[in-house]
Amino acid sequence: MFNFTLTYTDLYQLSMAQVYFLKGKADEEAVFDYYFRKIPYQGGFAIFAGLNNFLEILENLSFSQKDIDYLKSQDFNESFLAYLKDFKFKGTIRACQEGEVIFATAPILQVEATIVEAQLIETILLNLLNFQTLIATKASRIKLIAKEKTLLDFGLRRAQGTGGYYASKAAIIGGFNGTSNVIVGRDFNVPISGTMAHSFIQSYDNELEAFRDFAEKRPKNCVLLVDTYNTLKSGVPNAIKVAKEMEAKGQRLLAIRLDSGDLAYFARESRKLLDDAGLDYIKIAASNQLDEFVIKSLQEQNAPIDIYGVGTNLVIGKPDAALDGVYKLVFSNGKPRIKISESLAKTTIPHRKQVWRTFDEHGNFNGADVISLSDEKEIKKMNHPFEPYKSLIIGKFHQEALLKPVMENGMKLKPTPSLSEIAQFSKERLALLPLEYKRFYNPHIYKIGMSDALKEAREQLINSHKN
Amino acid sequence: MFNFTLTYTDLYQLSMAQVYFLKGKADEEAVFDYYFRKIPYQGGFAIFAGLNNFLEILENLSFSQKDIDYLKSQDFNESFLAYLKDFKFKGTIRACQEGEVIFATAPILQVEATIVEAQLIETILLNLLNFQTLIATKASRIKLIAKEKTLLDFGLRRAQGTGGYYASKAAIIGGFNGTSNVIVGRDFNVPISGTMAHSFIQSYDNELEAFRDFAEKRPKNCVLLVDTYNTLKSGVPNAIKVAKEMEAKGQRLLAIRLDSGDLAYFARESRKLLDDAGLDYIKIAASNQLDEFVIKSLQEQNAPIDIYGVGTNLVIGKPDAALDGVYKLVFSNGKPRIKISESLAKTTIPHRKQVWRTFDEHGNFNGADVISLSDEKEIKKMNHPFEPYKSLIIGKFHQEALLKPVMENGMKLKPTPSLSEIAQFSKERLALLPLEYKRFYNPHIYKIGMSDALKEAREQLINSHKN
Repeated sequence: MFNFTLTYTDLYQLSMAQVYFLKGKADEEAVFDYYFRKIPYQGGFAIFAGLNNFLEILENLSFSQKDIDYLKSQDFNESFLAYLKDFKFKGTIRACQEGEVIFATAPILQVEATIVEAQLIETILLNLLNFQTLIATKASRIKLIAKEKTLLDFGLRRAQGTGGYYASKAAIIGGFNGTSNVIVGRDFNVPISGTMAHSFIQSYDNELEAFRDFAEKRPKNCVLLVDTYNTLKSGVPNAIKVAKEMEAKGQRLLAIRLDSGDLAYFARESRKLLDDAGLDYIKIAASNQLDEFVIKSLQEQNAPIDIYGVGTNLVIGKPDAALDGVYKLVFSNGKPRIKISESLAKTTIPHRKQVWRTFDEHGNFNGADVISLSDEKEIKKMNHPFEPYKSLIIGKFHQEALLKPVMENGMKLKPTPSLSEIAQFSKERLALLPLEYKRFYNPHIYKIGMSDALKEAREQLINSHKN
Repeated sequence: MFNFTLTYTDLYQLSMAQVYFLKGKADEEAVFDYYFRKIPYQGGFAIFAGLNNFLEILENLSFSQKDIDYLKSQDFNESFLAYLKDFKFKGTIRACQEGEVIFATAPILQVEATIVEAQLIETILLNLLNFQTLIATKASRIKLIAKEKTLLDFGLRRAQGTGGYYASKAAIIGGFNGTSNVIVGRDFNVPISGTMAHSFIQSYDNELEAFRDFAEKRPKNCVLLVDTYNTLKSGVPNAIKVAKEMEAKGQRLLAIRLDSGDLAYFARESRKLLDDAGLDYIKIAASNQLDEFVIKSLQEQNAPIDIYGVGTNLVIGKPDAALDGVYKLVFSNGKPRIKISESLAKTTIPHRKQVWRTFDEHGNFNGADVISLSDEKEIKKMNHPFEPYKSLIIGKFHQEALLKPVMENGMKLKPTPSLSEIAQFSKERLALLPLEYKRFYNPHIYKIGMSDALKEAREQLINSHKN
């Protein structure tokens, strides 16, 4: 539903590109890392999302005539604009697989291209990957708690404008079962789901009549909203009447929905009323400001809720609402590059790199990813990236390279998997992450280290800048 | 840049619409209120934004053939789909002017249409107005503090996907001077602005050469980023060299930019170095996790910063990240409608309504807006909406109706003003709001009341539901 062009960017990318172009540096080779510094939600892991979406957009990204005309009005150089008119990204991208379990500090994706290409795609790359990763991570946290209960995204109305489109998509990657967002259902073959609004009930003179009309005309997957007037005295009894009438026609009411009050109390009381009426197959759906913490508490109290509808807190990734992903130059014009900071934690890690996930003897993640130079293999020791005297011997079990080529010469190397395939991969990978990294409160910190060779190369560069 | 269709909605809108259609209720008249319950950021006011954008989209909104085909696959009824194929919103909308200073509880906008029309536009209305209002409000808070300093939006990379498009636009309404977001510059005639990234400096072997090349090829509005290696020992001295070289060519360096460290300290020390070199015209720009509170503290310390670049916290509306705007049925099929809740604060206010802003003898806002039935005038008394025994006599100065027709028969009544016109209107209105409502900490609460007639009508309806 979007017409992206390369003006979906920050002005400085174009300003810098023009200087590179006019100075004959446009074709200098550059390597940029994409990574983030802090796992969102004070959690122990994140889920990488947005990769295929980004690559598909990138394959078709260019400047339109409208863009060129606009840039002309902004004092850009004529010969530079002629160059932009035919501009296309022709670089190489290596990345973790979409849905991968990822951590802070290690590169998730590496771009190798001319410096102009790499610079002109920075903003859209960050914009798409930061946000989708934020939301897939939120969804996966909710899924961890909700386990086999059904999870539905209801957030579009409070989403950040059209960001809601990506949010609903990323929620599926994180483990949600469906969305109320119809256009996302249309575009990504995701199950769409929904019930009715209070306004529907209110538009009738009585609740029972409203339920009857709805069940008559939408009997399949019918869910009745029972809290418009009085949940236990009116909503549930009326839903039971309609459910019985549906039974007489050979139909089954799918669920009732609670959207206010104490959800555990109302779910329990409603469950009793339904069961006493012999309607134990009718499910209970609940919504109203849910997030992983509220759902955790409802689950701990064994609230008989079968379906959770999650809205605002999911689609805006509350409370973080942004992932601090960055895109840093690590190599250009034949040389490794570094950004020095007063703290080692903010000093970048130079060079073309690879990231190795290590596994324990049972095939689970071993609590340590190692960053190496791109041509290293079988890393035996890792060094803390910010604490110069900390290191760790790595077990001799399996190691797996996480950064794999996904785009070459500006072309995607593989077709985009379906969202359910990405979700399935993510689920399998998350199952390999030991429990202590999945806790909400003070999760164990997954170790990220550097190989000896990378550590040495970085130290050299820091020292050469000191002099 | 968006292709909106009517599937940009929640599924339940379509489910309800189908029931209305099949039950012969599709043409029943309905009135819905748009309002919010809580002012964002614990503030004392909000700024209404997104109206013209929403109306423009609404004028052209329909279902595409692709949508109809998709809905067919989702078990919608054939005759209903035939009806959707030609569907267009033909209703009437009354609203506050875009840029207006608004408060919780009182309707900001009222939709009068058939119930199907009103329901099918709910999700996109909430999605667009909630978010743009959230961001314009954030921007206006920052503007209140930054006063005449220049404010630039740098947030696209951490925005919630394409929500960033609306964020940059709404920031201008709230008083920002420009944005780095090129596509928003292209589409809304907003000044675009930007400097250079650390990667630009890093891609050179030395900082001075990087500055020189940049100044040579982008001398107009040139801003040099001085913190890549060492701000005071390298960045600022190199910027001074280049500024002198520019002077020799009859050019002027616009500014230097600080992006790390203690901004007040570095601004003060940089200012000294620049002034000592006779370069008092060079401005200082600062960025790095700014929001209204950080800027307030920098301003209180008289940090010599001329330009603030604000990113993430602005474009995601941190910490709220969502406005809780709702859309409630207040009238349908010839009758006022109400949603009863256990608390009066969550019980809706029925009927077609008007909202009156009252003014004091100096022409300033008088601290009280009154909601009345739509045909009332010259309200003399207002009643608290949630506290049944509180009321207030309204002074006899000027009263102004806030809800004015903006769309009739699905057509916009006026051309969309430019963003700068909307920003100017907003600034003028905000100037009429007394200071105590603009405080960040515990601002005074703007009173919202109901006329006697509206209070009575609501009580009647509550009582009739009790029986």
